[in-house]
Amino acid sequence: MTQTIKAGIVGATGYTGVELLRLLAQHPQVQVAAVTSRGEAGVALADYFPSLRGIYPNLYFQTPDQADLAACDVVFFATPNGVAMQEAPPLLAAGVKVVDLSADYRIQDIATWQQWYGMSHASPEWVARAVYGLSELNRSAIAQAQLVANPGCYPTCVSLPLVPLLQQGCLKSGAPLIADCKSGVSGAGRKASVGSLFAEAGDNFKAYGVGGHRHLPEIRQTINTLQSGVADGLVFVPHLTPLIRGMHATIYLHTEAGVNPHALLAEHYQNSPFVDILPAGSTPETRSVRGANICRISVQQAPQSEVWIILSVIDNLVKGAAGQAVQNMNIMFGIDENAGLNITPLLP
Amino acid sequence: MTQTIKAGIVGATGYTGVELLRLLAQHPQVQVAAVTSRGEAGVALADYFPSLRGIYPNLYFQTPDQADLAACDVVFFATPNGVAMQEAPPLLAAGVKVVDLSADYRIQDIATWQQWYGMSHASPEWVARAVYGLSELNRSAIAQAQLVANPGCYPTCVSLPLVPLLQQGCLKSGAPLIADCKSGVSGAGRKASVGSLFAEAGDNFKAYGVGGHRHLPEIRQTINTLQSGVADGLVFVPHLTPLIRGMHATIYLHTEAGVNPHALLAEHYQNSPFVDILPAGSTPETRSVRGANICRISVQQAPQSEVWIILSVIDNLVKGAAGQAVQNMNIMFGIDENAGLNITPLLP
Amino acid sequence: MTQTIKAGIVGATGYTGVELLRLLAQHPQVQVAAVTSRGEAGVALADYFPSLRGIYPNLYFQTPDQADLAACDVVFFATPNGVAMQEAPPLLAAGVKVVDLSADYRIQDIATWQQWYGMSHASPEWVARAVYGLSELNRSAIAQAQLVANPGCYPTCVSLPLVPLLQQGCLKSGAPLIADCKSGVSGAGRKASVGSLFAEAGDNFKAYGVGGHRHLPEIRQTINTLQSGVADGLVFVPHLTPLIRGMHATIYLHTEAGVNPHALLAEHYQNSPFVDILPAGSTPETRSVRGANICRISVQQAPQSEVWIILSVIDNLVKGAAGQAVQNMNIMFGIDENAGLNITPLLP
Amino acid sequence: MTQTIKAGIVGATGYTGVELLRLLAQHPQVQVAAVTSRGEAGVALADYFPSLRGIYPNLYFQTPDQADLAACDVVFFATPNGVAMQEAPPLLAAGVKVVDLSADYRIQDIATWQQWYGMSHASPEWVARAVYGLSELNRSAIAQAQLVANPGCYPTCVSLPLVPLLQQGCLKSGAPLIADCKSGVSGAGRKASVGSLFAEAGDNFKAYGVGGHRHLPEIRQTINTLQSGVADGLVFVPHLTPLIRGMHATIYLHTEAGVNPHALLAEHYQNSPFVDILPAGSTPETRSVRGANICRISVQQAPQSEVWIILSVIDNLVKGAAGQAVQNMNIMFGIDENAGLNITPLLP
Repeated sequence: MTQTIKAGIVGATGYTGVELLRLLAQHPQVQVAAVTSRGEAGVALADYFPSLRGIYPNLYFQTPDQADLAACDVVFFATPNGVAMQEAPPLLAAGVKVVDLSADYRIQDIATWQQWYGMSHASPEWVARAVYGLSELNRSAIAQAQLVANPGCYPTCVSLPLVPLLQQGCLKSGAPLIADCKSGVSGAGRKASVGSLFAEAGDNFKAYGVGGHRHLPEIRQTINTLQSGVADGLVFVPHLTPLIRGMHATIYLHTEAGVNPHALLAEHYQNSPFVDILPAGSTPETRSVRGANICRISVQQAPQSEVWIILSVIDNLVKGAAGQAVQNMNIMFGIDENAGLNITPLLP
Repeated sequence: MTQTIKAGIVGATGYTGVELLRLLAQHPQVQVAAVTSRGEAGVALADYFPSLRGIYPNLYFQTPDQADLAACDVVFFATPNGVAMQEAPPLLAAGVKVVDLSADYRIQDIATWQQWYGMSHASPEWVARAVYGLSELNRSAIAQAQLVANPGCYPTCVSLPLVPLLQQGCLKSGAPLIADCKSGVSGAGRKASVGSLFAEAGDNFKAYGVGGHRHLPEIRQTINTLQSGVADGLVFVPHLTPLIRGMHATIYLHTEAGVNPHALLAEHYQNSPFVDILPAGSTPETRSVRGANICRISVQQAPQSEVWIILSVIDNLVKGAAGQAVQNMNIMFGIDENAGLNITPLLP
Repeated sequence: MTQTIKAGIVGATGYTGVELLRLLAQHPQVQVAAVTSRGEAGVALADYFPSLRGIYPNLYFQTPDQADLAACDVVFFATPNGVAMQEAPPLLAAGVKVVDLSADYRIQDIATWQQWYGMSHASPEWVARAVYGLSELNRSAIAQAQLVANPGCYPTCVSLPLVPLLQQGCLKSGAPLIADCKSGVSGAGRKASVGSLFAEAGDNFKAYGVGGHRHLPEIRQTINTLQSGVADGLVFVPHLTPLIRGMHATIYLHTEAGVNPHALLAEHYQNSPFVDILPAGSTPETRSVRGANICRISVQQAPQSEVWIILSVIDNLVKGAAGQAVQNMNIMFGIDENAGLNITPLLP
Repeated sequence: MTQTIKAGIVGATGYTGVELLRLLAQHPQVQVAAVTSRGEAGVALADYFPSLRGIYPNLYFQTPDQADLAACDVVFFATPNGVAMQEAPPLLAAGVKVVDLSADYRIQDIATWQQWYGMSHASPEWVARAVYGLSELNRSAIAQAQLVANPGCYPTCVSLPLVPLLQQGCLKSGAPLIADCKSGVSGAGRKASVGSLFAEAGDNFKAYGVGGHRHLPEIRQTINTLQSGVADGLVFVPHLTPLIRGMHATIYLHTEAGVNPHALLAEHYQNSPFVDILPAGSTPETRSVRGANICRISVQQAPQSEVWIILSVIDNLVKGAAGQAVQNMNIMFGIDENAGLNITPLLP
C-alpha cells in the first residue's frame, strides 16, 4: 500500500508557500493537512489564491496554534528568516520532519549566520543537526535527516555546476571565481515594497547587494566543504531583471590544466533527473525551466581565453525553493525522488 | 486494461503545438507517436524546444509524408489556416479522428468562411460533418464526432459565459452586446512579425481589427444557433496587451427582465470542471488560469445601470487552444474528460 | 523680458511629482524653487531620483514648513487625496496660484465627494472657486482661475473625445455609454502595495473597481455639465494592464441620427495641439504618446452596427496628470500653452 | 546668426532611425531635410511612426535616389551593416559629413572586420580616414573628421569606464577582464525575427553569442589602442534581458597596486556632461538613463577581494546609438556638444 505523507505548511501566503501548494497538489503521496498564516487565519485558500480554486476545496489558513502541525509527518517552513528557528524545534522534538525554506539553518557557523542575518540564533543546537538540502550534493545525508535546510536560490543555481568540479579539486586555487547572477523579481517575495513594484522593477535592470549579499557566505560554505583555497576567489554580484520567475548564473572560472568541465559535469549528473547538462555550444534560457524543478547548465570556453564560462538556469521558486523542498521531502521519506516533480516547463 | 491513444501532431513548431506536447506529456492515456514539421524535419523535439528535453527523448520532427499519421488514433492540426482542409480529409477517410486547432472547419457557412479567410474551401463536405468543439456546449455531439473544429480563443472566452443565457433566451433581442476583449501576444503565433516584437508589443496597449476580425463570424454563429435576434447587436473589439499568455473578455449585455445571470451561470456550470463561476463581487485575473484549462467567469451589475458586466478569463493557449483540444479528444474517445488536464495554474 | 514663474511642488516623491520635475526641467519660463516631502526632508533630489542627477543640482526636499511655498507663484500638489484641501487654502489666501493634482477639488457636489472619498471636506468654500482643469474644455475659466483641480487620468482619457459630442447634444439620451478603460500600473502610484508588485501585476490582466470607481462621479459630472440625460447610461470599467505608463479607453456610444463623430471631433480639435484626431481607420497605441502631453483619438463604426467606437490613449502620468498640470499652469499665467510640452514621444 | 545644419538619414525605419528623428526634432540647430527608406518611399513619417505625428508634418520617406543627400551637411546611416560602405563614399566625395551608426567603419583592421562581418569591405580607403566615435575618447579627432564610425552599444557601455584606467596604464596586464553585459531587446533592431518576439524574449533571460560576438573585436581594438597586454584577458558575454531599452555592463577587473578606480574615473569625467560617475556605494539602474544620452557608472570593490566591479548603464538607443551620433555631429560641426541632448530620463 502506498504511504500517504501528511504535510503542513507554515507561512503559506508567500510565493514559496503557494508554489509548495501547487506542487503538492499533484504529488501522488502527499496530503496537505494544515496550512498556517497568522494574518489570514480563517480564510479559505481558494479565496486567497484564486489559482487554487477547486484544488484544495476544504483547506483554510489557520493560526499555528489551531493547526495541529505536530500531527503532520512533515512541516515546511515558508516563513521569513527568524521564524523557523523559533517554531521548528518543538515540532522536531515531537518527531516531525522539517524542511525549512528560510535561511535559519543553512549556515553551520553560528557567528557567521548572526553577522549576516542580524539576529541571535534561537536554536543553534538544531543547526548542528540540520542537513544542507542541496539535493544532488547531500542525497544520502538528507535521507537520514530530520531537519533539512533548503538552500537559497542563488546558492542552488551557482553551486550545482560547481560541485562536481570542486569535488574533484579541479578549480584553480587562488584564481578568481566570478558568479554574475540575475534573478527575477519574485525572489524578493510577496511583500509590499517600493523597489519591487511593477513600475520600478519593470523595464529596468540593476545590480544590488554588491557590497555583500546573504547568499555569499552560503555559497562560500559549500565551496569550502569541497575544495580549499577556492572560496577566497569568489566574487558574487546579484542583479534584478524584469522576470517574474527565473534565475541565471554566469560563472567565470579557472580550472587546473587539462580539465574539461563539460565532460566532467555531464558524467557527474548523468543520473540526476533534475540537473540537465546541455550539449556543447548551447545556452540555456530561463523559460526552459519555468515551473519545473530543473537546473539546466551549459559550459563554454571563452574565445581565445583560458576562462571557462558556465551558464546555469533555474526557476527560483522551484529548484530554487519549493521544488527542491519537495525533492528533499521525497528523499527524506525514501520515496521516488521524482514524485510530484515530473513537470514540463511552461513555454512560452 | 487502460486504452492508449496514439496521437499525431501536424505543425508542432508553433505555440499551440508545443502546448499540446506539454499537455499530452502528462496525459495518462496518450502516446505521442508522430510530430510533423516540414521546416524542421529530422530535428529532435528537445533540440527545438529545450523545455521538452527529457520529456520526449526519442521524438523527431518528420515531414507529413514520413510520419505515419494514418496509423494514429487521433491527429491534431496545429497548422496555419488552410492546411487542415487539405490534409485532414485523407486521414479522416482512413478512419483517424481529427481535432483541428485552425479555423478551417469552424464556420458552417462556406461563403462566410471564404469571405473572412480569403480562400476557397478545399473540403466543404467535411465542414458539414465537423462538430464545433466548444466542449461544454457540444459535449454529446463531440463524443460522436470524427472531426472536431476546435474553437478560436476569443470565441471560447466570449461564448462560454453567453451560452447559458442564450440557451434560455435571456438576452434582450436588439440590444447591444459588447465584447471588449484583450489578448496576450502569443495569440499571434510563433512567427516572425514586426508587430509582435518585444520592443513593439511590450509596454504598449492597442486595439486592432476593429473594422472586422475573423472571430466575429464565429461568435455570431454560436449566438445564432442558440437565440435569434441577438447576434445583430454584437460588437467585438479585440485588443493586444503585453501578456505572454492570457485573455480577458469584458462583456456588456442586456437581459430580459428578472434574469439573474450569476445564478443562472453558476447553476449551468456546476458540474463543469473547466468553467468556474466566481462568487459575487469577484474579478478574475488572467494569471489565475495560467497554464490551466479553465475559464473563470464573474458577473457584476454596473452601478446604477441595467447593464450586466461579465468578466471571463482563459489562457489563450490552453482553454483557448491546446487544452480544449485535449478535452475534446478525451470526449471523443470516451475517457475521463479531465484526463491530463488536472493542472494547477502557475502563479506567480 | 520673459517672465520666470517660481514653482513649488508639494509631495514630490511620487510618480506625478517626479514627472512634474521632468517636465518643468525643460520649461523655458519656470524655476522650481521648492520641493517638499515630509519623509525625505534634507535629501537631495538627485539622490532620491538618480534620473534627476545633474538636472536640479541644488535642490533638496524640504518639509512644507521649511519650504517657503507662499513665496512661489504657483504650487502644485502631487499629494494623496486629503492633503491639498488642508494645505492649499493658506497659500491661496496668500495669493499663490495652485494646481491640485489630487482629487480634492474635482467634484463640485460636496456630498458626492465625501461619499466617494470617505472624508469630510476641509475647504468646501474653495471647491466652489476651483476650476476643473480639463484644459481643452475650460481654457478660458482656467485662465482666470487661482485654483485648478487637475482631472483624473481616466476622466481625461474618456472625457476629451466625448466633450465635442456632448457640447453639440449628439449623444443619444438614455442609450448605454460604455467606457472600457485600461491603465498602466503607475496609475496606482509609487507606494508599497502587494497588488502593484511586478510579480503580481506583471503578465496579468484584470478588471477592478467594477462596482464603483472614484473616477465615475468625475466623468458623470463632466457629462452632466454638457448634455443632460446621458450620464445615466454611463458604464465605466477600469482594468489594470502590465504597462508602466499608458491608458487606453474604448468607448462604445450611440449618437443621434446623422452624426459623424469623426468629422465633429476633427473639427473641434483642429487647433488643439494636445488632442490628435487620427485618420479614419486608425487605431492609436499607448506608446505613441509615451512621455508626451497628447491624447490621440480614433473613431470607428462597429461593423454592421449603429454603435460608434472611440479609442482614446494618453500617458496617464502626462496628459493624465503632470503634463496637463503644466498645460494648466501655462494657461493660468497667460504664456504659450505649449511651453515646456513640445515633447516627442519615446518609441520604442 | 545661428548655423542650421541640414541633416539626412539613410534607413530611417528602424529603431536607431526613429530615435535620431526624436532627438533631432528638439535640436535647435538641425533641420532634417531628407529621410530615406527603399521599402517605405512615399509614406509620410507620421503615418509610419504615429509618435512623430505633428513633429515632421511635411516629411516623407524617399528612395536614396530621390532624396538629395549630397545637398545635406551631414548624413546619418542608420542602416544594416554593409550599406554605408557602399553608399557613404560618394557623399563623402561630395563633401558631406557622415556619421555611420552601423559597423562598417568601426574596425581599422580590414581582415578582422571581414572575418567577423562575413563580407568584403567595399571602401577600405575610408576606413583609414574614419574616426571611431566614442565621443569622450576621441573628441578632438572627431572635431576634424569627415566620417565618424559611431560605436556599437556594448563597446560604448564597456569602454567608457575602462578608458581612463587604460589611458593611465592601470589595468593589470595578463589578468582577466570580464565584461558581463545585458541588453534590452531593441538592440536586435526592428526586424521580424522569432527570437525577438514578445512571447519569446519576454519573461526570459539568456546569454547569447558566448562563442564570439561582433562587438568583441571592437572592444579589443579600443583596449589595444590605449594599453597593451590587457585585451588578451578580455572575456565578453552578452545576455538578452526583457527590457525594451537599456544596457548594463558588469565589469570585473584587476588593477595595478594602489589604483583607486573610483577617484580616477570621477576626476577624468568631471567635465563630461554625458558620463556620470556615481557616489561610492551606488548601483546604477538602466531606467535612470532611459531616453537620455548618459552613461552612469559606479565602482565597487568586491568584498574580501582584490577584484574591482564596475557597473555601467546606458540607453542602448541613445548613448549606445542615436544620441552619441548626435553628440558626434555636434562635435564635428563645432557647436555646443550638448545641443539637442539636454534630456531628463523618463522615469518611471
